[in-house]
Parts: sequence; structure tokens; C-alpha cells
Amino acid sequence: MKQSQMLIPTLKETPADAEIASHRLLLRAGFIRQNASGIYSYLPLGLRVLQKIEKIIREEMNRTGAQELLMPAIQPAELWHETGRWDVYGPELMRLKDRHNRDFALGATHEELITSNVRDELNSYKKLPMTLYQIQTKYRDEKRPRFGLLRGREFIMKDAYSFHADQEDLDKQYQIMYDAYTKVFERCGLEFRAVIADSGAMGGKDTHEFQALASVGEDLIAYSDSSDYAANIEMAEVITADERPNVDMLPLTEGKDNGQRTGLKYVCFKANEKLVVVYVREDDEINDVKVKNVLEADMIEVLSDQERAETGFDPFQSDSETIILADNGVKNVVNGTLHVEETNKDYINVNPERDLGVSVYHDLRFIKEGDPSPDGKGRIKFARGIEVGQIFKLGTKYSESMNAVFLDENGRSRPLIMGCYGIGVSRTLSAVAEQCHDENGLIWPVSVAPFELHIIAVNAKNEEQMTLADRLYEKYSARYEVLLDDRKERAGVKFAESDLIGCPLRITVGKKATDGVVELKVRKTGEVIECSVDELDHVISAHLND
Amino acid sequence: MKQSQMLIPTLKETPADAEIASHRLLLRAGFIRQNASGIYSYLPLGLRVLQKIEKIIREEMNRTGAQELLMPAIQPAELWHETGRWDVYGPELMRLKDRHNRDFALGATHEELITSNVRDELNSYKKLPMTLYQIQTKYRDEKRPRFGLLRGREFIMKDAYSFHADQEDLDKQYQIMYDAYTKVFERCGLEFRAVIADSGAMGGKDTHEFQALASVGEDLIAYSDSSDYAANIEMAEVITADERPNVDMLPLTEGKDNGQRTGLKYVCFKANEKLVVVYVREDDEINDVKVKNVLEADMIEVLSDQERAETGFDPFQSDSETIILADNGVKNVVNGTLHVEETNKDYINVNPERDLGVSVYHDLRFIKEGDPSPDGKGRIKFARGIEVGQIFKLGTKYSESMNAVFLDENGRSRPLIMGCYGIGVSRTLSAVAEQCHDENGLIWPVSVAPFELHIIAVNAKNEEQMTLADRLYEKYSARYEVLLDDRKERAGVKFAESDLIGCPLRITVGKKATDGVVELKVRKTGEVIECSVDELDHVISAHLND
Repeated sequence: MKQSQMLIPTLKETPADAEIASHRLLLRAGFIRQNASGIYSYLPLGLRVLQKIEKIIREEMNRTGAQELLMPAIQPAELWHETGRWDVYGPELMRLKDRHNRDFALGATHEELITSNVRDELNSYKKLPMTLYQIQTKYRDEKRPRFGLLRGREFIMKDAYSFHADQEDLDKQYQIMYDAYTKVFERCGLEFRAVIADSGAMGGKDTHEFQALASVGEDLIAYSDSSDYAANIEMAEVITADERPNVDMLPLTEGKDNGQRTGLKYVCFKANEKLVVVYVREDDEINDVKVKNVLEADMIEVLSDQERAETGFDPFQSDSETIILADNGVKNVVNGTLHVEETNKDYINVNPERDLGVSVYHDLRFIKEGDPSPDGKGRIKFARGIEVGQIFKLGTKYSESMNAVFLDENGRSRPLIMGCYGIGVSRTLSAVAEQCHDENGLIWPVSVAPFELHIIAVNAKNEEQMTLADRLYEKYSARYEVLLDDRKERAGVKFAESDLIGCPLRITVGKKATDGVVELKVRKTGEVIECSVDELDHVISAHLND
Repeated sequence: MKQSQMLIPTLKETPADAEIASHRLLLRAGFIRQNASGIYSYLPLGLRVLQKIEKIIREEMNRTGAQELLMPAIQPAELWHETGRWDVYGPELMRLKDRHNRDFALGATHEELITSNVRDELNSYKKLPMTLYQIQTKYRDEKRPRFGLLRGREFIMKDAYSFHADQEDLDKQYQIMYDAYTKVFERCGLEFRAVIADSGAMGGKDTHEFQALASVGEDLIAYSDSSDYAANIEMAEVITADERPNVDMLPLTEGKDNGQRTGLKYVCFKANEKLVVVYVREDDEINDVKVKNVLEADMIEVLSDQERAETGFDPFQSDSETIILADNGVKNVVNGTLHVEETNKDYINVNPERDLGVSVYHDLRFIKEGDPSPDGKGRIKFARGIEVGQIFKLGTKYSESMNAVFLDENGRSRPLIMGCYGIGVSRTLSAVAEQCHDENGLIWPVSVAPFELHIIAVNAKNEEQMTLADRLYEKYSARYEVLLDDRKERAGVKFAESDLIGCPLRITVGKKATDGVVELKVRKTGEVIECSVDELDHVISAHLND
């Protein structure tokens, strides 16, 4: 492609609201353009990268035997009523009415739609298993769209859904998809971890997130320094040794601690219309997700100060309606301290079971760096990640509510067992950009680069240089994707924009064109190789196949 | 692909609301599934055809030098306010509000968005011309969605936009796109005509529709029996010879005609808040589009009986506020007749200029079969068509209202001159199905067939047959797209479904498998060729490359 004919609106200034490198560079290098908050156009360079990622995903999905289909973005509300999600899904679900005043959603996800598509068809165990996927545009009205394509309101996802006759078969497919996802992200050149995750509003149990490591990531990952254990911080299990000190309980007393006792603290939640009080050690943090999971609640809310005051809660006099939970770490506290917010009083020699009505302990706190890894191997470290994929074992949540059943081998009607598997396609593009850049611009891995070769004539007015550049462009376009900078710009501008765009290899045709000598620059390492036109074939293929 | 693993939900019954063959067969053969009125899923077979059409379009667009990009479906209302189309576009434009109560449209078309994307960038004649296209999902809330993918509410379009410094350059690009569209539809195997059309709400002047010929088409095309002249019936020019009879005007009289005089009739419209009365000969029909164009009005409305009564209009006493128009054919009427609806009276010896205040004649009627072709060659015939593409010379309608300007060679600021070019991608799929089928099912052209070869083992329980079928499947999958019917269904079911799905070639592996002999059936002609496995290569390639 000739650069003079392409729409590549590079920006000299850094856009004001672009907080992170990928957002900044994708805008500056003319890959994307914002049309509204969280809503973007993919300009020709951006679309080329996107299509390469899509191709990798298609290849790996097809290899698993999954079949591609394409469902609509507009979904009738009736389907969402069947699963109850019309009411549960908050303002993130974009809704609209048609001219007949009927309700529709813009699909944030497609469980309802795929289930409605197969429910009459996959009616026998003989037709199972089946896995279907699509690469399609999704909508989520994010409260705070940000970071460019990382958290947008209109974005591209690959979503897959599998249907099974039994759990074992789902487990098998889950592993196949896990492996396929690993290949996809490896091929995209991402550094990532598959981490144990929370299934959130999706339902189901087992789930892994694929997290591209990046300091700007919104997710915190806990991983072992000695094994491949990794979990979203929300889900990382905390192993608490039984280390209850063998001392006598002293009488509960109002008063300040002398600094030797272990502090306790508590947080009040509302869940299923009940008051829930959770105790942890003062230097630990309560993990809402774990609390929610222990309570088997769909949602829990921390009480505001006012709501809290209204409950009239007293730790030492809690009524039987109140649910008292305590973290495993609390179990080891004898004669601890407690500050009671409601009365602004401090107590010492607090013993959880005797004084606070605690009867059962759970893992309810966030893991910390240095904690032992839950798999017993090594210690926990933290890293930040961008969630680029997630796989779920959904089970029968959707098939039961939508009556998607099949006849098993014994002629009994049973709900389909489902898995679902997502990749944020546009988000993967951003994650690659976030991992692969330097201060001068983007550095695309060969597999997803918009062009593999960037040919620049230093002086476009010099006939010899342009002739050689044209000749190389013609020659290599047959084998590679080549961008030719044929613009009559200053060499400095061309070089700077070439670094900004970030194709893996650059061929610079300069003064030595007369002697048939050009420069090859490797964008990633900065290495510059002077070589004759005859040697080019070899040098290029060595680098692009590396 | 093995059929046992594919989602192909064929239907034995014809869906009740499917009025036309393509809709019926695409549903019955499991290519698409309806999710809501005018909203469909493309199942694996349907998506394969769709992707092939998309590939053809991409190849032909890229060949013209157009660059692909991808714009969002959700568009901020502000852009539509800039062009005024937010208010002009009726209920067909789907609208929604985000969580902050801001207005958005689901793109029915992307003139506003593309113009906003380029308006700061294409700021110099040096950067022109440029053509950009996308293949993307569009939304139109049709009053009466019908005919499956032909008139849907969510559908896939290829839309392209070109930007030019002068009209001559636009004219050049228009011809390039005209030629590219011709290639696209030829490659898709469509029988079509490029017809002169009305630019409607899009603005601009020159425009052609590409109409796939089909008896169920919603558009009526007038074409010459002796030249390549073709026009949408709305736009077909009527040539009226000057044949005014040389007789004296007789006095206007109330009374019934004896059957020898030429009848006149009139219709009352409202346009720009004025009463417009249009006269034509009794056996002609008024063409609203022509009336609208003569008036240079955005919209005209036929008055209801009540509205008409309220005007108090009297043909013989019209006031100066009323606009009187007459068709060219009226000019030749001397001593005609007129029935006045308002008073229910009949008149004879009506002379338009003398009695009706007619002073000027225009081409205002629909063309009829048998009329002379406007290009002077032959006579007009009618055909019905499905509009699969349209190309427009937009001019500066959008660039002016959105202030998209460039500096010309003399440093003067001028609005960009635009063209726009659409292909209904999903509609093309339907149009091919509508043209290519028989009573047994679909008959896909090789270029867009979901699979090129369909291999069937007559008896899947017969080991010899299955082994040979498998072997052929493996062998030809390396060269062609092959569907293997490995299901344990009765042979009759397999044959019927194979005809329904409509792959170009079918290889039937039956009893003669023992002797290495199979049957090849050509779907289109029904021809059956018995041949040895050794001869297959040759026979297949002869048919698929035909």
C-alpha cells in the first residue's frame, strides 16, 4: 500500500484524555479515532491489526471444531425476561424501543440468543456436543469509558458457547478452549497468565480469565513465585495456618490497646435484605466477592454510615437476625482489640467466639504479597493485568430458565449443560499495543502488524531512490504486506512516523541507493543492518520468520 | 466439515410467514434463523455464503484503491444535527439514550460519521482523492420488515465514501465504482441491471441502482428492448411527441362524454405548505418522484379526501396561490373531459390552458410498457428487481453542512466533493437465493456456495461406503470446501437435504463403492455422471472451474 493514498491521520500532540500508552499511541499513530465517549472508528491501520487478530482467533476456534455463526446485536427483551436478566442487568445494558414500542437490548452478551437459537434443534444426546462462536460487536454502557479500546461502549468480541450432555464432556471442552485461548494469545505475541476468576453475573462455577500483564491493567493478579498458580485477586484463596496462641482469655474491657494485641475490625453489609457483619484482622482487607460467594447472594452492598447507624448494631449484643461472619485469620486472635464505630469506643481482650457471636470462619480476606501460594508452592506476588479473555462453565443456568432440553440415552429430558468462552478482540488489540511499545511508538509483533515491511525513500524527489524503493515495494508486495512511504515529506518526519506506526522491519532507501545498498532497521531492537539489495531476501525472511 | 457436527436445522414444514422462495429456502435449509421481526442469525451455512460475498466485495473494492475501515454502529446525535438529518429521518432511524441521557442513533448510513472522521485530515488537495469503505451492520426500523434478509431491520452493508477536489474526479471515481459493482455482482452469479435511480433522502444528483432481476422484487424497472437503457420506474423519463390535434377548441360544457374525447384527471398534493394540483391524462399515472423533483421539495403528500374538501379547490377557478402542474401528455389534449371530484360533476371540451390555468408542462407521469425508450432505441419493457447496490454522486451536501473543507491549489477553502456507494451484503445473499433455486431447494453458484462439494455415503452403516466417503473427504478437503454427510440418516433424507442446501456438486458413494465407482450430481442441471474414483479429479475440476 502506498502511504500517500492511505488515511493515516497521525497526531503530533498527545490527546489530552489519553491516560495510557496504548490509547495515546493508537490515536497518535492514526490507528483509531474517537467518535463519542467509549466509541471508536478503526481506521485502515487499526482495522488491519484487528482483522489479523480475528484471523488468528478463527483459525484456533475452527481447529477445535467450533463452528462460526453470526447473531444480531439487537435482541428482543422477551429472551432476557426468560432468564430474568432484563431486570438484573443494570444500566450497562443498552436498551431501546422500536417503532411499535417493543423493548430490545443491544447485546452485551449472547447467552439468551444462542440458547434460543439451538433450543429446538439440539434436542437429543446424539446431536451433542456442539460449540458455536461468533466474532461480533457488543454494547455495554460503561459508567466510565476509558483507556481507548480497553473499556469501550461498543467493542468487538469473540463469544463461543458449547452444549453438552454431561459435565464430563463440558470439562473436556473447557480444557480444549483453555488450550485454544493459550494459543491465540501466544500467537498475538501477548505476555499473559490464565488466572482463576470469579464468574460474576454470568452464573456457573469454574472460570478462568486470560490476563495480559500490564502495569495499567485494571485487574490485580496474585501469582506464585514458584509455580503456575495465578488467580484474580478477588478469587485467590488464602491459606491460614492454625496458630491460635495458647493463652487464657481475659475479661473484655473498654480501653485502648498498648500496641501488643492483635486488632480486629468489621464491616456491615446488606445481603438478601439482611444485615451481615464481617470480621477480619485489622491489617487485612475484606474481599466482597468471597463474602458474596459464602452468602450465595447475587449482590451485597456495604452499608453507608447513615444506614449503619440506623441498624443500631452493637457487636456485643447482636441479634439473631444478623449474620455474623469472620475470616479464618480471626480464629487465631485471642484477647484482641476492637474499635466500635457506632459508639466510638475501644475495647481490649475481645475474643471473637465469646464476645462477638462468631461461630464459623471462612476465607474472606484479600490475599497479600508474601502470603503462601494456595497450591503450597512458593509465595504470592502481585501483577496487574488486562482481561483479554474469559472461559466459564455455565452449567444449566440458561438452559433451565429457557427450557433448552435434550433427550438423554435413556429418553429422559434434561437441560443442556453449557460453557461459554469470550475474547475481547478490540481489547486484545489494545493490550498488544500496551505491551509492545517504546517512547517512540508502537512495536507490533509480526503476527498482528498492520504491515510487515515499511519501505522509506529518504528523499522522494531523488529519482534513483524512488526507483529502487518502488522496485523493492513491487518485489516484496508479492511475499509480504508492505507499506511504501512515497510521500514528499522530510526524512525526519518519515522516520518519526515510521517508528510511531511500528511495523516490524523498515527498509530505508537513501544515498547508497546508487550502489544498491539499503538499511534495514528492526523496530523492536533498534538494530540497523546495512545490506545490499541482493542480501535483503535472506535478512528479511530471517527476521520475519523469527 | 462433517455434517454430524454442524448446526444445520433444516425444517420440513414451510414457515408460515415466509412469502418468497429465498426466505422460505434459507429458513428451511438452515442458513438463517429469525430472532425477531426483521432480525436474523446467520447460522454456519448462511455465514459461509455471507463471508464469501464479503470477500468478493473486499477484493473488488481493494482493487479500486479504496481502503477499508470500520466505523461504529452507535453514532452521537450531534453529528446528525449538523446535517439536519436527526429531524428529517423518520422513525426508520433507531434512536436510543445512553445512561447520561445523551441521544444516539444506530447508524442507518454513515455519511455523518465518515465526514466527521476525515474533516480535519483531508484538508488539502494534495491528500485527495481518497475512497474509504466498510463492511458493517446497519439498522433501519422498517415499518414492515419482510422477505427475510431482503427487508430486515438489522442488516449488513458495504458502504463506501469518496472525497474529491473537483467534480471531474468524482465522475471518474463514480465510473470506477460502477465498474467494480458490476464485477461484484457478476462474480456473485447475479443477473442484474444498473438502472438510473432517484437519490431520495441521500441528496446529490447522479445515481444508479444495481437491481437483481426477480419477480418478487419490490422495485419496478423500465428497460429498453433494444439497448442497455434501464431506469427505476420512478425515474424513467417519458418522451412525449408533440401530437396536438389541429382542431378548434369548443366551449366548455357540463356533461358526459360520448367516449370519443381524451380524459384528464388531477391529484391534489401538499408541498412546502402549498396546494399543488397535477393534471395527467386519464390513462396515465402521476409519478410522485417526478412531481417532487420538479417542485424541488423534500417531501410531498397526497391530500386526503377531507383535506381536499377543505381546500375548496375548483379546477376552473383556481387562485394564484395554487401551483398548477401538468404532464407533457396533457399538452396534446384539445376538448378533453374532466370529472371534478369536489362537485361530482363532469365536463366536456376542457382545454388545459384555457380552462385549467395550465401554463407549463413537465414529464410527470410513470412510463408504461410499450412507450418509446428515452434513449431513442426501442420500446420500454418492465421487470422487477431487488436493489442490491446503489451509487451516488453526493456533491457537497454533507461537506458543506459539516464544514469539511480543503485548501485547493490556489489556497482557497472549498467543501470536499463526495460520492457514496452501497451494497446490501445480506440482501445480495437473499437475491442470489431468489434467483438460484428450484422446487427442491437452493442452487448456489460456485463462487458463493457454502461448500463446493457435498459427499454422501448412501448407507453410513456400510463400512466400505463410509471408508471411501471418508477417503474422498480427506482428499478433496485439501483442494475444495467439502461437506461430508456422515449422519446415520436414511438415504432419502440425505438426498433431499442435499438438494435443499444446494452445493454445486454432490458425490454419492453407494453400492458401487466396492468397484471404486461413485456418482457425481450437478445440482444446477440435475445431470448425473457415474465415474470411477480415478476420473473424479478431472470431472470435478471441469465443473467447478466452469
